[in-house]
Order: sequence, then structure tokens, then C-alpha cells
Amino acid sequence: MALFLPVAIDVMGGDNAPGQIIDGARQAFASGIPVVLVGRPEEIANFDTGGLPVIGASEVIAMDDDPGKAVRTMKDSSLVRAAEAVRDGKASAFLSAGNTGATMASALLRMGRIKGVQRPAIATPIPVPGHLPTVLLDAGANAECTPEMLLQFAQMGTAYARARFGIERPRVGLLSIGEEDGKGNQLAKDANEAFRRGDAGPGVNFVGNVEGRDIMTPNIDVVVTDGFTGNVVLKTLEGGMKFFAGKVFEALTSSPEAKEAAKVLLPALMPLAEALDPSTYGGALLLGTDGVCIISHGSSNATAILNAAKVARDMVEADLVGAIRAAVSEGS
Amino acid sequence: MALFLPVAIDVMGGDNAPGQIIDGARQAFASGIPVVLVGRPEEIANFDTGGLPVIGASEVIAMDDDPGKAVRTMKDSSLVRAAEAVRDGKASAFLSAGNTGATMASALLRMGRIKGVQRPAIATPIPVPGHLPTVLLDAGANAECTPEMLLQFAQMGTAYARARFGIERPRVGLLSIGEEDGKGNQLAKDANEAFRRGDAGPGVNFVGNVEGRDIMTPNIDVVVTDGFTGNVVLKTLEGGMKFFAGKVFEALTSSPEAKEAAKVLLPALMPLAEALDPSTYGGALLLGTDGVCIISHGSSNATAILNAAKVARDMVEADLVGAIRAAVSEGS
Repeated sequence: MALFLPVAIDVMGGDNAPGQIIDGARQAFASGIPVVLVGRPEEIANFDTGGLPVIGASEVIAMDDDPGKAVRTMKDSSLVRAAEAVRDGKASAFLSAGNTGATMASALLRMGRIKGVQRPAIATPIPVPGHLPTVLLDAGANAECTPEMLLQFAQMGTAYARARFGIERPRVGLLSIGEEDGKGNQLAKDANEAFRRGDAGPGVNFVGNVEGRDIMTPNIDVVVTDGFTGNVVLKTLEGGMKFFAGKVFEALTSSPEAKEAAKVLLPALMPLAEALDPSTYGGALLLGTDGVCIISHGSSNATAILNAAKVARDMVEADLVGAIRAAVSEGS
Repeated sequence: MALFLPVAIDVMGGDNAPGQIIDGARQAFASGIPVVLVGRPEEIANFDTGGLPVIGASEVIAMDDDPGKAVRTMKDSSLVRAAEAVRDGKASAFLSAGNTGATMASALLRMGRIKGVQRPAIATPIPVPGHLPTVLLDAGANAECTPEMLLQFAQMGTAYARARFGIERPRVGLLSIGEEDGKGNQLAKDANEAFRRGDAGPGVNFVGNVEGRDIMTPNIDVVVTDGFTGNVVLKTLEGGMKFFAGKVFEALTSSPEAKEAAKVLLPALMPLAEALDPSTYGGALLLGTDGVCIISHGSSNATAILNAAKVARDMVEADLVGAIRAAVSEGS
């Protein structure tokens, strides 16, 4: 572990920055993961960092800043400095709960793309309580996609599902509006044809079209789609689950009798709540950049940051970047 | 009520046809809605129809038949005959739980489009327990859309939300991947610009972009999107809710103690289960055809058919077709 480079953590990004982010970083360090904090030294000094190393950055990219412009003009921002730390061999990976677009742009501009990758994609694990999650990509990096991009998403998603969840030969589905090959919009139809021709290469185990209802089931491992549809799916599920969970909670606390009954059910309901908690998986991975970049949820708390740091460490140790490089060059 | 033309019910379509469909039709009639059954007389004769009138049709379009081809070639199918009954003034509306594509094609080819409507759209109420549902359209009729089509969906969705749920000035949102106007794929960006220019006309209360997480909230009344994205959203929610509900049910029955506790919670949980039950809203409406057409879920039971018949009756009485005609011509 002594040779393992630290994970660079942008402590300025996210709804709970910097307090919860620093807390999460400390917890990660305590669990054996070397970390380096990136942010404004004078703000970090207000918190007990437990002596963690700091890379200073004087600027902060806000959640609603224009990503491209912010990354180009705020060269001393915590996000840009975190990505540079990876590029310069001072960190093994970086993570941020800040502006998603700026996180992607920092990763792309500072770490660069893996050779052969057309466009990096965001891969998000969708929880399937009681089972391994389903990897959804692209979850929002590319609003417009070509069939060729979807083929690469399948290659990268396969490498990721194997490295992260140990699925030897992940089943890859193409998101569409019918299981039959001919169903969908033009992109889905063209992509389906390309997959059926075997254009994704022998490394991709394409099982055909899948529908929205298949995502939260154990029947599929990787679901590929364009970043517009993927992002809509992700947020629809997030919203739906939150609303449903809120209603169940309302029912469980609707009367003194209900509250008593709920206590009995808590041990059975807790694993479900945990599995659906966004902090469980620590965040999404940006696949296709020449370095590990984790995009944590804006609402990340210390636990989410701890989990994200673990994922970063695991993905560096599993050489995810090398696996994606091999998958993309083999498939082309 | 004597002057009200019957609702034509395709008793051959759906997973539970014809038994549950006929049951539902009987219940509808018992509740004061005149109905006419459409299907194979020899099969209908095996069930107790309570003497309901029958329009004979010798063919049945299967769930997996190619919609266009089936409707063109199977002229004596129950779906085509049901749509013809509306065209010929023998029925006021028709409904089917069968092949969705063929239902749309029958409606379009036999009843025709309302003048000025580019493409009919499927409008599906998304349950928001404790509140009025959110109307989502297009939920799957048009995999490829233009900005102009989305403007019309907004006009038609507005007329529908008013006629069906009594919302005087429904808030219309454009589904995208960010609330800011510039966010989204090309279609969403172009549509947003057209909405902002006021191209949808004064009748549409456009409130801006909405995200997936907004759909199941009381914050929006009508959400417009292309039929690919809409169908993915619908099935994603359906799958997610089903999976979540199944897991909650597992927890409630995980032990004898849990089962006892669950009994106490049942009164509080039942309204939620009912609100999320697809049969509650009876199905989706095809908007833009010159007659009321209800697309019920393939899994419809008798209750779903009863509710669908009620919706059909209500939409005829509210002159939904006239309201859409006015909305589309006013907006253009």
C-alpha cells in the first residue's frame, strides 16, 4: 500500500462541502486508503483534517457554472487541480461531488482520453436490491450519440462491470422501446444492427434490446444508451424511488400503532433502504479518460465519499484504465 | 344517458382476454355506461355477457403481430371493427388492451386524425399518490419527433389534463437533462426555444424544462417528450415501482412477527398500492385522432377495463376531441 498513490479528493464540490467531504476523506484514510485533499487551504484549515496532505487551489467551480468555460478559465480551481494531480503522477485517481459537467471537462482536458475512445461516458450502478447492480451508461456525458459510440460504451461498460463487480462475461443490453431488434428510434435501430453484426467485438456479450422495466432486475448487467435517455432514466428512477420511499415512510409513521409495527419491520426494511441509498455505490465512474475519475452525487455525505474513495482505490488496483484500453482496441 | 352511444370494447385483446375483459364490460354496463363487445361471437358465447350487444369480428390481432401489416390485412379483426364502430357512429369511443401499435394504427386509419394534428400521441397518467397524476406524452406512439410535434403534444396534453383532471391551466414541462433552457439533446434544445418563443400558443402554460425526478411530484401537470424517451420513462418507472413494491412486500412477510405488524400497516399502505396500480387510471389515451381511443395495459383485469370505460365515457362527455381540435387550431 505504501506505493499506492493517494486519491485526490475535491473537498470544495457538492452540497455538503467541505465539512462532509473532509470527514469522508478522513474515514477513507482511516480505512487504509491514502488520500490528498484539494481545495482552498484557508477553508480547509477550519476543519480537523487529521493532518491529511493538501493540494492548494484558490478557486471553486460552482454547481451552476458553465462547465467548459469554468474549466478553461479557472485553472487554479480544485477540480482542475485534482485532475492535474492524476496527470502529474501525484494521485492515482480523483473524485468530486461538485459540478458534473466541470468534473468531466477537467478529466478530459487534464488526463486526456484513452487512445481510440471517441467520447468518455458516465457509468452509473443502478441498485438491484438483493443482486448485483445494473451498470447504466451513458448516464449523461453525451446528449447526442452515434451507434459507434454505443458500441464503445458496451466495450467500456463490460470492462467496468468485470473490474468492479466481478462479472466475468456481463450481459449487455441496448435500451429501446421493444425487445425485438427492429424496435426503437433511428439510433437504437442502427446500434442494434451494428451489435448484431458483431461490430462491438468478441469481448462484448450482447443479448439484445432491453426495455426500461428490465433495468432494475437481475436479468441484465450492463445497459447502454445515449446520454440524454440515460440521464432521464437515472433521474426518473431517483425521483420515483424517493417519492415511493417517502410514501412508505409516511405510512410507517401514520399513527402510534403504525410506528410500533414499523419497529418490528425495520430489520427487514433497512437492507432495502441501504441498497437504494445513492451513497452505497459512492458515485458514477467516468469511463474512457486516461485515469480514474469518480463523479459523486451532489448530495454526497461522508459515507458516500468514503465509498467513492474505496471504489477509486479498487478501480486503480484492478487497472480499469488498462482494461478499457484493451477492450476498446480489441473491439475496433 | 339514453342518447349516449356505447363504448366499443375489444374483448379479444390483452393477456386476460376475453374473460376479464367481458367481466369489466359487464361491470361498466352495471355502472351505467352503455357498452358493445367486439370480437369472435363463438368465443364470446362461452362467457356470460349478461346480454350485452356484440359486434362480430372473425380475426384477432396478436400482441406480437406487426401493427401496420396486421391492420391493413386483417380487416375483420376486433381492433379494426372497434375503431370502425366509432367512425360509423355506432360507438362513441373504443378501447383495447391488445397490441398497442395495432390499436393506434386502427384508430388512425379508421377514425382519422383531427385536422391540423401532425401525429397522434399516447398520453399516460403517471400516478403521484396523494395528488393528481402527471400526464406524460408521448409515451410511445412516435419514436422520432420534431420540435413542432412536441408543441402540439403540449397543446393536446393541456386539453386532456383539463378535460380529465379538471386542471384549468396545467403546467407544461419539457423533459430534458437540466432545468436550464440550453440543456438537452438537439430536439430538447430546439423545442425549448420554440416554447420560449411562444410557438405553442397562448393556451399552453409552459413552465420550462423538467427532469426525470420531477415527473412523480406534484410540481408539474403535463410532461412532453418524444415517444422513445417517454416510453423508456414509463417502463422504467413501471419496472422500478414493481421491483420496489415487491421488496417491501417481501419485508412485510419476512417473518411471523413482520406479518402481524404488516396487518397494522395495511390501512396506511393500501392507498399507496392502489394509487400505483396501473388499473387505477384505466389506461392511456391516444390524443389527436378524431374519436376517443383508450389503450389499456396488456395486463388489464376487469377493474382496469371498468375504469377505462369510465374514462372513455367521461372523455366523450367532456368533448375531448373538440377541445383538442380547438387547442391545435388556436395554437397554430
